[in-house]
Amino acid sequence: MIRVTLWYEYAQELGEVRREFVPGMDDETYAGFAEFMKSRAEKIRQVYPKGLMGTLAEALSKDPELEITMTNIFEPEYGLPDELLEKTDVLVWWSHVLQETIPDSLAMKIVQRVQKGMGFVPLHSAHKSKPFMYLLGTSGCLKWREDDFCRVWTAMPSHPIAQGIPEYIELEEEEMYGEPFDIPRPDDNIFISWYRGGELFRSGCTWTRGYGRIFYFQPGHETSPNYHNEYIQKIIDQGIHWTAPRVWRKDFDCPNIVDAPEKR
Amino acid sequence: MIRVTLWYEYAQELGEVRREFVPGMDDETYAGFAEFMKSRAEKIRQVYPKGLMGTLAEALSKDPELEITMTNIFEPEYGLPDELLEKTDVLVWWSHVLQETIPDSLAMKIVQRVQKGMGFVPLHSAHKSKPFMYLLGTSGCLKWREDDFCRVWTAMPSHPIAQGIPEYIELEEEEMYGEPFDIPRPDDNIFISWYRGGELFRSGCTWTRGYGRIFYFQPGHETSPNYHNEYIQKIIDQGIHWTAPRVWRKDFDCPNIVDAPEKR
Amino acid sequence: MIRVTLWYEYAQELGEVRREFVPGMDDETYAGFAEFMKSRAEKIRQVYPKGLMGTLAEALSKDPELEITMTNIFEPEYGLPDELLEKTDVLVWWSHVLQETIPDSLAMKIVQRVQKGMGFVPLHSAHKSKPFMYLLGTSGCLKWREDDFCRVWTAMPSHPIAQGIPEYIELEEEEMYGEPFDIPRPDDNIFISWYRGGELFRSGCTWTRGYGRIFYFQPGHETSPNYHNEYIQKIIDQGIHWTAPRVWRKDFDCPNIVDAPEKR
Amino acid sequence: MIRVTLWYEYAQELGEVRREFVPGMDDETYAGFAEFMKSRAEKIRQVYPKGLMGTLAEALSKDPELEITMTNIFEPEYGLPDELLEKTDVLVWWSHVLQETIPDSLAMKIVQRVQKGMGFVPLHSAHKSKPFMYLLGTSGCLKWREDDFCRVWTAMPSHPIAQGIPEYIELEEEEMYGEPFDIPRPDDNIFISWYRGGELFRSGCTWTRGYGRIFYFQPGHETSPNYHNEYIQKIIDQGIHWTAPRVWRKDFDCPNIVDAPEKR
Repeated sequence: MIRVTLWYEYAQELGEVRREFVPGMDDETYAGFAEFMKSRAEKIRQVYPKGLMGTLAEALSKDPELEITMTNIFEPEYGLPDELLEKTDVLVWWSHVLQETIPDSLAMKIVQRVQKGMGFVPLHSAHKSKPFMYLLGTSGCLKWREDDFCRVWTAMPSHPIAQGIPEYIELEEEEMYGEPFDIPRPDDNIFISWYRGGELFRSGCTWTRGYGRIFYFQPGHETSPNYHNEYIQKIIDQGIHWTAPRVWRKDFDCPNIVDAPEKR
Repeated sequence: MIRVTLWYEYAQELGEVRREFVPGMDDETYAGFAEFMKSRAEKIRQVYPKGLMGTLAEALSKDPELEITMTNIFEPEYGLPDELLEKTDVLVWWSHVLQETIPDSLAMKIVQRVQKGMGFVPLHSAHKSKPFMYLLGTSGCLKWREDDFCRVWTAMPSHPIAQGIPEYIELEEEEMYGEPFDIPRPDDNIFISWYRGGELFRSGCTWTRGYGRIFYFQPGHETSPNYHNEYIQKIIDQGIHWTAPRVWRKDFDCPNIVDAPEKR
Repeated sequence: MIRVTLWYEYAQELGEVRREFVPGMDDETYAGFAEFMKSRAEKIRQVYPKGLMGTLAEALSKDPELEITMTNIFEPEYGLPDELLEKTDVLVWWSHVLQETIPDSLAMKIVQRVQKGMGFVPLHSAHKSKPFMYLLGTSGCLKWREDDFCRVWTAMPSHPIAQGIPEYIELEEEEMYGEPFDIPRPDDNIFISWYRGGELFRSGCTWTRGYGRIFYFQPGHETSPNYHNEYIQKIIDQGIHWTAPRVWRKDFDCPNIVDAPEKR
Repeated sequence: MIRVTLWYEYAQELGEVRREFVPGMDDETYAGFAEFMKSRAEKIRQVYPKGLMGTLAEALSKDPELEITMTNIFEPEYGLPDELLEKTDVLVWWSHVLQETIPDSLAMKIVQRVQKGMGFVPLHSAHKSKPFMYLLGTSGCLKWREDDFCRVWTAMPSHPIAQGIPEYIELEEEEMYGEPFDIPRPDDNIFISWYRGGELFRSGCTWTRGYGRIFYFQPGHETSPNYHNEYIQKIIDQGIHWTAPRVWRKDFDCPNIVDAPEKR
């Protein structure tokens, strides 16, 4: 049984952002932002009547090996109190406009939990989330544009995450993310996406950090219906299985080996 | 001074293939093949009046640090006798329909010269050449289609091979090469190409084998004018500089260290 | 069920080498060589009454998920006819003095089977075997010395191949293999060995070639008793599981995609 | 000209630690710590009359291509004000007992400067420094023991950082650092160290983060005389040249590409 925590910003769906989530924003900007979030929520409801993560959770819950907990930034301790984090085998993470709201201290707890063995599956705009940037050590910068036709190519068909996936998946509408994508050399670059507007993007990549594995996957714009797509669901499901921990690191000690092996 | 050998199949330009180059081909197939080669030569002459490699050589010869020797499969010993190979710092290699004509023994000499330090820059259809496949250990398989619009994206702008290259280069016509491309994990994936027909391709990649460095670069279809393109020329020039040997391995001994360091 | 083929040179145990296996050797050298092989066989019998591979096979056969076939170079077609190769999921390979006896054509068949998905576990002196060198594209050169104390360190404790293995394994006697080891950048460097004589060696490494996975593991000198060691057995067993194919490539076609995805 | 900043903790040499540097330490612990630092300073003066970094700086200043600035944690803004950081091409960093004193905000500035192109050469105990951990995304954990004989092996003789370095360097005394070393897969693992006590360590490794290059090198225990060693000096000098920036990233924007390339 893999204990999966789906963490979601949720502000998009709720159509509101708590004033204290964006303390640095002036009142006028906040007003416009709140307005934008409201209109966004309406769109999302049309595309995802059960919610963005609700739809993904429903799909993943068909896999009997996964035990799914949903949480979001509106819950206490930004939705990820220690008790929950410590019971999480794989953290699936969708964040966007509130990336900066997550305190560094929480981001660092996630980083350390990954280093101890937890799987991490950052989705879509989580390329600029603190846990993503702090684990990879890069900025996650990229180009973007709303609403383009996207064709996700399987560049590495033998990878466990790509099993059962066709040579390409067509997504009628997805946010364009374009190269250069500021990431360190991936362990494996499994998927690369083609956009009709002329760009391309390394959209499915893995890395290892300590005992933990990371799988980033690009599709998941909040107003595009791609979490309804069975192949996208399957890739995320397989990403969860692939990043699931086999063994945990207990601590971050640097032990002083007073008795050298050669003298024992 | 970098001693560059431009090795080229040449049959395309010459418009003929020696009968003994394709011993396994039956007479009828050979007749059709010869016909095809003739018509191809006419097209090439229109696009490259100075020849495919002639054009590239002319461009590279503007770089005062390069000393260029051109050779081809019609020369003695398939154009690469030991004396020439042993004076080559970087081997630029364009091959296509006669990949199988190169004897294994010559391919293995090239492989070993790379392992000793020689730079290797296989271009375009050399993805199925013996030196490429024997160095990488994979099949080099890919998809293809003649004549598509191609946009070469710079995915790794900080790499020495990408200096001075814009975010993308547009090629009005190039052969489409598509993923999955059967290569081992690259050291660096510097360029990725987008094709209007819907495919994409990791078109500029590096690997290290022994003391030698390899840079594969996709553009270079014989009837597309891309070796006239200044950026394509610049990338190949920078690829030559980047793969140029810094130090040579002398032999492939496995020495028996009778006196252990700890007992000396 | 994983169909494992244990391929073994066997000349060492048998104490003889067929004259035709070493056609390039002059008679005098052959006489000395034959003498050496005889004396070697006596030593091996003392250390491995059931044989070098016999001992390993016995250990591996305790794993109910493995179906083991033993074969060797004295069998028809050098022990690896097409029918057997095509039924092999993971090929475990121990070779040494007869590496050159294996024809290139057989080595290339093995290479292609790996590219199609077969796991490959070259052991010990197989670092100079043709399948190893042709898959990795490097010479496999290293330093060596007979009979040293060896401590195998687990550098990557979270890797599936290292599960249940302690921080180090002590081998009272093993052949020393020393750096530099001429291999391409490994996917993972799981084990590194320390020798009392003063050297060290990247002794457990993985690579991917096409659909296939490779795990090289150093211990296994024919007169050292290390295939009796439970941890060494466990590592090889886990290496077999880890390299076992998940999916097979059917052919090495480069399809011409006449109908572009954008026009379908 | 490469503008090199040698940043050094300095407390070890000075023999004192400002009380405010270790706010979390209780008075009794601080007293013992201060005592230890004093005695350490005496030892260092014997080994390095010109100081630990003073010795290294003197050696590096023989290279006419380097322009060296020394600084330390006792200077304003922990020795690295923005004006200095922004004029730094390569940051050489030695830190140890005061790693936690460096504020996260400064560590993040260093991280971002590396991502923009600055070279970073963390030495010895900097494996637990914040810039090291935040760039690599791992804990940097390892084993250690004071004062062991160390033999640094060159595992990758063709790398620019290893030019002119013999197959191994013997250091009569160095702190032992042992595997497992919690680092992500290195781009290149150039040096591996053997310790007489029985351990080994990947002591010279490189990574890329954004536009910046990183070279970690292990030797440099404050009471061992290894910065007097010409080969160690040469390796660090070559590490500086190798990490020196070729091109700088200007910002960390994620531009919205409203006009798709295909519509321009």
